[in-house]
Amino acid sequence: MKVKNNIILALDVMNMKEATEICEKLEKDLDTIKIGYPLTLAEGLEAVSEIKETFNFKVICDYKVADIPATNSKICNQTFKAGADAIICHGFVGQDSVQACADEAGEFNAEVFLLTEMSHPGAKLFLQENADAIAKMGVDMGIKNYVAPATRINRLKEIREIVGKDAFIISPGVGKQGGDVKETLTYANAAIIGRSIYESDDSQKALKDFISLI
Amino acid sequence: MKVKNNIILALDVMNMKEATEICEKLEKDLDTIKIGYPLTLAEGLEAVSEIKETFNFKVICDYKVADIPATNSKICNQTFKAGADAIICHGFVGQDSVQACADEAGEFNAEVFLLTEMSHPGAKLFLQENADAIAKMGVDMGIKNYVAPATRINRLKEIREIVGKDAFIISPGVGKQGGDVKETLTYANAAIIGRSIYESDDSQKALKDFISLI
Repeated sequence: MKVKNNIILALDVMNMKEATEICEKLEKDLDTIKIGYPLTLAEGLEAVSEIKETFNFKVICDYKVADIPATNSKICNQTFKAGADAIICHGFVGQDSVQACADEAGEFNAEVFLLTEMSHPGAKLFLQENADAIAKMGVDMGIKNYVAPATRINRLKEIREIVGKDAFIISPGVGKQGGDVKETLTYANAAIIGRSIYESDDSQKALKDFISLI
Repeated sequence: MKVKNNIILALDVMNMKEATEICEKLEKDLDTIKIGYPLTLAEGLEAVSEIKETFNFKVICDYKVADIPATNSKICNQTFKAGADAIICHGFVGQDSVQACADEAGEFNAEVFLLTEMSHPGAKLFLQENADAIAKMGVDMGIKNYVAPATRINRLKEIREIVGKDAFIISPGVGKQGGDVKETLTYANAAIIGRSIYESDDSQKALKDFISLI
């Protein structure tokens, strides 16, 4: 995946009116957005199709897919049919579940991102101790795209070491959550930034400020 | 939760026409169904509202919610607003993520089911070794409802021992996946059955046959 200015906008709003307004303001300097289930549940998968039709954006669906292989396939099929360019899946549910997502992505010439680790406090309990093994599983499977946190730069660095220099890492947590964009991009290919851009009084300037730091 | 005849129908179809036809045929002997993201993504959360309005069913949304707390809250909020009676969430993302679901359920007088273990081969890699600890976390948190697999009856039994006799366990994998309904209900409060009922030439008879075995 190629990401303009190495910044992905996390479009964590709850309706298409707001989403569209934000996209209109930022489309000059961005070409990739990430949306999650909250917007999708509020507006339907049409949210993806509408963004794809209206803007020249790549859309990553951050659905953290975590079901059995057959259900993962169906979730990915619906998502890619709606026009999504990529989907994010959990590795914790195992290789067959991730492979189901990868296979479905292959059918649509779309991409899968494997989530290795998360940055909320609860992730320490079960997820963190398995994050390296999940990343290694991804490498063994030939997965090319990963998600690793900007909020804990050492872990991002370690995951880069595991997945190798040719892997494509996107990294959430830059901005409000405390991650530094420049440091993050030392190890990640793209930084995911949300509220500190779209909640800004001047979102265009906020985005440009981040770009100028890179 | 009270489940008529101790059987929950897994309504794993991809459109509301089929879903409605199946519900019409089975509404006499059932009062609880489980739907997943595939139907929701295909038809929108309106699928939940429509089933709630048309039938006298409790609806469990099997979304295997597995995000950070703030996003889990938003997912649950949308789902309960649509009328869902319960949601299934993953435990491996940690206590705060599960608590976010439980808090949102509390607001709507709805319920949360904590998924302890899954039965597909990939679950062996990371999930199984943490399943007991996830169940224990649920007990410590005061979670009352759990999901544990019918396909591995020993594990279902062990999880019952962890969560205690007053917890409410629902158990997928009965029927086509090999779980036995009677044995499952020795340890679970309700068996989740899908294809072996709704794919049957006579789904009413198939359901009645399961009920007669209990």
